[in-house]
Amino acid sequence: MVQVAIMGFGTVGSGAYDILIENAEGISQNCGQPINVKRILDLRQFPGHPAEALVTANFEDILNDSEITIVAEAMGGTSPVYEFTKALLMAGKSVVTSNKEMVATYGTELIELAKKHGCKYLFEASVCAAIPIIHPLTQCLAANTITEIKGILNGTTNYILTNMQKNGESFDAVLKSAQAKGYAERDPASDVEGHDTCRKIAILAWLAFGEHGKNVSWTDIPTTGITQITLADLQKADEDGCVIKLIGHAKLENNKVTCKVEPMRIPKDSPLANIDGVYNAVLVTGNFTGDVMFYGQGAGKLATGSSIVGDIMRIVRK
Amino acid sequence: MVQVAIMGFGTVGSGAYDILIENAEGISQNCGQPINVKRILDLRQFPGHPAEALVTANFEDILNDSEITIVAEAMGGTSPVYEFTKALLMAGKSVVTSNKEMVATYGTELIELAKKHGCKYLFEASVCAAIPIIHPLTQCLAANTITEIKGILNGTTNYILTNMQKNGESFDAVLKSAQAKGYAERDPASDVEGHDTCRKIAILAWLAFGEHGKNVSWTDIPTTGITQITLADLQKADEDGCVIKLIGHAKLENNKVTCKVEPMRIPKDSPLANIDGVYNAVLVTGNFTGDVMFYGQGAGKLATGSSIVGDIMRIVRK
Repeated sequence: MVQVAIMGFGTVGSGAYDILIENAEGISQNCGQPINVKRILDLRQFPGHPAEALVTANFEDILNDSEITIVAEAMGGTSPVYEFTKALLMAGKSVVTSNKEMVATYGTELIELAKKHGCKYLFEASVCAAIPIIHPLTQCLAANTITEIKGILNGTTNYILTNMQKNGESFDAVLKSAQAKGYAERDPASDVEGHDTCRKIAILAWLAFGEHGKNVSWTDIPTTGITQITLADLQKADEDGCVIKLIGHAKLENNKVTCKVEPMRIPKDSPLANIDGVYNAVLVTGNFTGDVMFYGQGAGKLATGSSIVGDIMRIVRK
Repeated sequence: MVQVAIMGFGTVGSGAYDILIENAEGISQNCGQPINVKRILDLRQFPGHPAEALVTANFEDILNDSEITIVAEAMGGTSPVYEFTKALLMAGKSVVTSNKEMVATYGTELIELAKKHGCKYLFEASVCAAIPIIHPLTQCLAANTITEIKGILNGTTNYILTNMQKNGESFDAVLKSAQAKGYAERDPASDVEGHDTCRKIAILAWLAFGEHGKNVSWTDIPTTGITQITLADLQKADEDGCVIKLIGHAKLENNKVTCKVEPMRIPKDSPLANIDGVYNAVLVTGNFTGDVMFYGQGAGKLATGSSIVGDIMRIVRK
């Protein structure tokens, strides 16, 4: 039996918990042993929840529990997560996370730290939730030199652009309906200004381009969101046989990596053109494979939880 | 330095060789040590080829070479490959393959045999060449119960249907041009009758459905190819908002797996509808992830070679 802890019992953390409970039998079969959630870190209490008794507000209860070998971090932000993650890795506990801000900012350092202490820092859930992209990119396509990545990496903006394009609704009108449906935050800046996409393409570029991608920093990536896109732009694109998508773009040319985030015209016969609504897709070009694309839900409690649990299982199987 | 051998120096085997040479530096960096091709098994000789001196017609030269720890099998067929593969695994040498007939027929047995002898039997290249599907399905999505797989798994038939649909050419006319371009074999039965798709969906069903998929045999799967599809069928589908694709389909319902291969109507807003030409795609439904799709070239020397080398690297890294 493997003992794990979950830090942050919001949407994603509770999604991972639900999956570990609901699919316990399949997970145990796949891993050769059961996985048990022993502790949950959250400042809130959850009276009446089946996991109520596991919840603690004290990080030390997890750090100092020698039975706990894997910790799922779904707290978000970098403080106090950075300190917590370092302490866990230094104690030899593996950490899996959905926290793209942490990975985009401290990924290199934390992977090194994990290696040094004989544990793992995995983050499949940090980019595009349900879509297996981190592992395929770094492992399955490893024989290739990756030359380019183009991704629709944010569901909110893709939902807005899709509805503008297909239904002729204005940016403001679609944003309002997206907020009502829970597809957009009340403060939508991080999505519609492109910052969320920027962090994700930074992570992908860092992983895809080996030595050349090492110094990609999300703070340096030119980033334009979709707030200036008008119905007239979309119509003109349509007349030219294109759609407009917010693209996170990274390219390796002459040993130099360039990244940008901006609304781009995508020809209608590109596989990226038909990725609609809240779905995400990442088109990766390898020098041997040619174009390979990965598609799926880029957000959501169970979609993200599934990738977190997948990473936990990967560690247990080894 | 890891010593490997390649069995079968045709399109795929020589593709893997070329990648190991051309990307030697990147591969060595990724794996922490270089990978060297020590032997190539082929009945033919290759005078003037840089690998000429490595070629042997004698399988024992590989089996009895204790330095060789990984063998890439790209011979095709099951005889003598089945005997060769068993002998290699029993000698503790890992085998990676692109041979879908072997995997569909003997996969379960060979994985068990590899486990028993402390080595690996990997086959990412056996389904959809360049597309990472085997590993994502069995590892990245492992937290899910997979409930359905729908795949465009054969590039030849997809090329034919795409050209019929888009250009209004007849089946016979497109088949002829596909043969001229090398996209279809001179004897196209294995592709157009659906047998190739059948073997691939059998492999995917076996891997996706755990215990329930264990007894899926490709010889039992109802299989209909595309030879009876007419331009009128395609036009009628178009009028109904659909395209026709040859689909390998597998479903888990009430703990029972059902598979079939047949031309199916796919609504134009499905991500599968826009997979055109020689490209392949596999749409996987998980109970937590929802729909996830993998897309890329389903054939080709370097595309397939890339997945073979990816599997070799996976073994070396461990």
